[in-house]
Amino acid sequence: MVCELISVGTELLLGNIVNTNTQFLAEKCALLGLSMYHQVTVGDNRERLSETIRTALKRSDIVILTGGLGPTEDDLTKEVCAEVMGCALVEDTHTRERIEEFFRNNIYKEIPENNWKQAIVPDGAIVLDNDNGTAPGLIIEKFGKSAILLPGPPNELYPLFMKKVFPYLQKLQPEIIRSQMVKVCGMGESQVEDKLLDLISKQENPTIATYAKTGEVHIRVTAKAVSEEAADKLIKPVVKEIKKRFGDFVYSTREDETLEMAVVRLLKKLELTVTTAESCTGGMLASRLVNVPGVSDVFREGFITYSNKAKRKILDVSKGTLKKYGAVSEQTAKEMATGGVFATDADVCIAITGIAGPDGGTEEKPLGLVYIACYLKDTVNVEKYQFKGSRDKVREQAVMKAMDLLRRSILDNYC
Amino acid sequence: MVCELISVGTELLLGNIVNTNTQFLAEKCALLGLSMYHQVTVGDNRERLSETIRTALKRSDIVILTGGLGPTEDDLTKEVCAEVMGCALVEDTHTRERIEEFFRNNIYKEIPENNWKQAIVPDGAIVLDNDNGTAPGLIIEKFGKSAILLPGPPNELYPLFMKKVFPYLQKLQPEIIRSQMVKVCGMGESQVEDKLLDLISKQENPTIATYAKTGEVHIRVTAKAVSEEAADKLIKPVVKEIKKRFGDFVYSTREDETLEMAVVRLLKKLELTVTTAESCTGGMLASRLVNVPGVSDVFREGFITYSNKAKRKILDVSKGTLKKYGAVSEQTAKEMATGGVFATDADVCIAITGIAGPDGGTEEKPLGLVYIACYLKDTVNVEKYQFKGSRDKVREQAVMKAMDLLRRSILDNYC
Repeated sequence: MVCELISVGTELLLGNIVNTNTQFLAEKCALLGLSMYHQVTVGDNRERLSETIRTALKRSDIVILTGGLGPTEDDLTKEVCAEVMGCALVEDTHTRERIEEFFRNNIYKEIPENNWKQAIVPDGAIVLDNDNGTAPGLIIEKFGKSAILLPGPPNELYPLFMKKVFPYLQKLQPEIIRSQMVKVCGMGESQVEDKLLDLISKQENPTIATYAKTGEVHIRVTAKAVSEEAADKLIKPVVKEIKKRFGDFVYSTREDETLEMAVVRLLKKLELTVTTAESCTGGMLASRLVNVPGVSDVFREGFITYSNKAKRKILDVSKGTLKKYGAVSEQTAKEMATGGVFATDADVCIAITGIAGPDGGTEEKPLGLVYIACYLKDTVNVEKYQFKGSRDKVREQAVMKAMDLLRRSILDNYC
Repeated sequence: MVCELISVGTELLLGNIVNTNTQFLAEKCALLGLSMYHQVTVGDNRERLSETIRTALKRSDIVILTGGLGPTEDDLTKEVCAEVMGCALVEDTHTRERIEEFFRNNIYKEIPENNWKQAIVPDGAIVLDNDNGTAPGLIIEKFGKSAILLPGPPNELYPLFMKKVFPYLQKLQPEIIRSQMVKVCGMGESQVEDKLLDLISKQENPTIATYAKTGEVHIRVTAKAVSEEAADKLIKPVVKEIKKRFGDFVYSTREDETLEMAVVRLLKKLELTVTTAESCTGGMLASRLVNVPGVSDVFREGFITYSNKAKRKILDVSKGTLKKYGAVSEQTAKEMATGGVFATDADVCIAITGIAGPDGGTEEKPLGLVYIACYLKDTVNVEKYQFKGSRDKVREQAVMKAMDLLRRSILDNYC
């Protein structure tokens, strides 16, 4: 089955916002085994929108439209799509009640007249309740095609799609499609692919796909089968083989678990607390950890020691070390990590010091040079990296490597 | 003139990456005064690519294609576009020399055979040197239309577009277009629009457009004229009027200056140093400041005090205050900011404490409640906010408000 995406919104044509919805939907459609050949963005213009929908319905089986379902006069997606597909518009009592309820729970008590427009739906359409807004999702089935209309704001679109549309699309498929993620860090994409070459070259069902992200690679194993059980049975040995090949490089096999979540989970399990001592990353590492809900069990305090004076005062890095080796050195990183543990009552400390740029590099210590140290059980592991890219990119990569070093140090000592 | 964007790449159709190029190009085209009605993404498929280019050339004057200029067999953009426009392919000696030079300066000394393909160009095309890769940009002019072919990787596309394509497109226009940005924070988009209503309603030349971002609003004033001087003359009084209306809410009028850059600039100018005391934001504020190159003049150290114990130990927040008012309170925020200054030799301290969620909210202290305090010259300003959204969104908004409070506190005291 062929699926096509249409994003509706003048703000996209003007470049006011990045279209992240398309990536989200395309990834999910690929996961469902749908083919996709076109993604189109068009403005809130009756004629062009009509033409775009017509073309899409001609060449694709499923057309997913996002945006243009709002309450204002500009919003035309529903009206134009109903017209193209020859459906009358009728009021949906259930949606009317949901809009009333939405505003009852809202700080704005009065319901704007415009919002009633959102209770009008194409006759015969499947109405999908939107838990985070007043515009419902809609599915129009006609001529063996499905047009799926969804609200544009990501906080409405994503949960609505996953809860209602994903299962709908799954049912349209002759086979069940299941997939399992294996997330790897500490290795580049080509290294990962090299290790999987034989599996990838002979793959048929399940298939193996790799996705490169900053500092990590995701491996997705996808199988088609007549039942969920049969699909899982196909996936299981392949995932087992991948996990065997990558060992401790695998940090998670959970779809929604980020590296920081995996690290916090590990710390919680072993009842360890961590502190941070950051120079060039300036709080970015701590901020990533703190984005994990419930981090307070394992993280209580952290330090940003950007100047040499702060490194000495807070972390007790010695004057001699800073003078002899400089702030960006293995020795300083070591003393920062050690000092972090002694300044707190944490079990582990991760320290980062480096040259993020754009200035400050030398022949001996070039831009992108970063030392990362992990203090645990009276020993310190230090790693040296030479990153490429902008100031922000260098800092981001350093944070990923720091979380990975923390993870590996714990595994080496406790698991 | 009507411009259309075509992104070429199977990785986009599979949702492996977010298409940020389109936003970049669309924004620049809008700035140039070009109309845009369609943005299309298509894979590396000869037939569909050909059809897409044909349709685009029919309905638009300028077609910008990105991606598919690489050295592999999958990369078809140049070949298909030349075919559609009826151009032969010829070798460009200059580009061949540039490819040789590129590899001389590269760590991989040997030139892969495939790369010579990139020296083949459509006959008569304008060749645009790419300083960051081997695929040159190409402009094919025919039938009164322009097809502009550009490499997909952002680090090649952005500089190539700004250096070569932007001036080319500017010359196609009968008039010069110039614009000036006014960046406002501490106000929502509707508030900003209300204050500009009369100006926007009577606008013709220059035009005024607002763009909402997290915690800030950008106002762009754009004028068309026969010369740069004439355009600037049209813009100047409008920008002056906007600056008058928004006063200290304006944090910058520089295109590329972020709020953190403006804050660091202000601190540098007044020779002030700042420290940070963060609870729920967990280092995100410090990390934003540290992303500004040269921040070391004004920021030397910062603290993440996530637990009550850390707040007491590092920032000297009193036990009584934490017990009586709780960690998320005006009183605690005040003591955190005061403690931050006394724990360092900074002139200013910004403190943040709040409930980022998803758990931990109560009737009295709901999720999203955040107190931000700024200590400066023996006085502390505290502001209370009730943010909406996910844990990360709450933290992001808190960081923006914190930087703004810092900015306003300095302006109130020194300017």
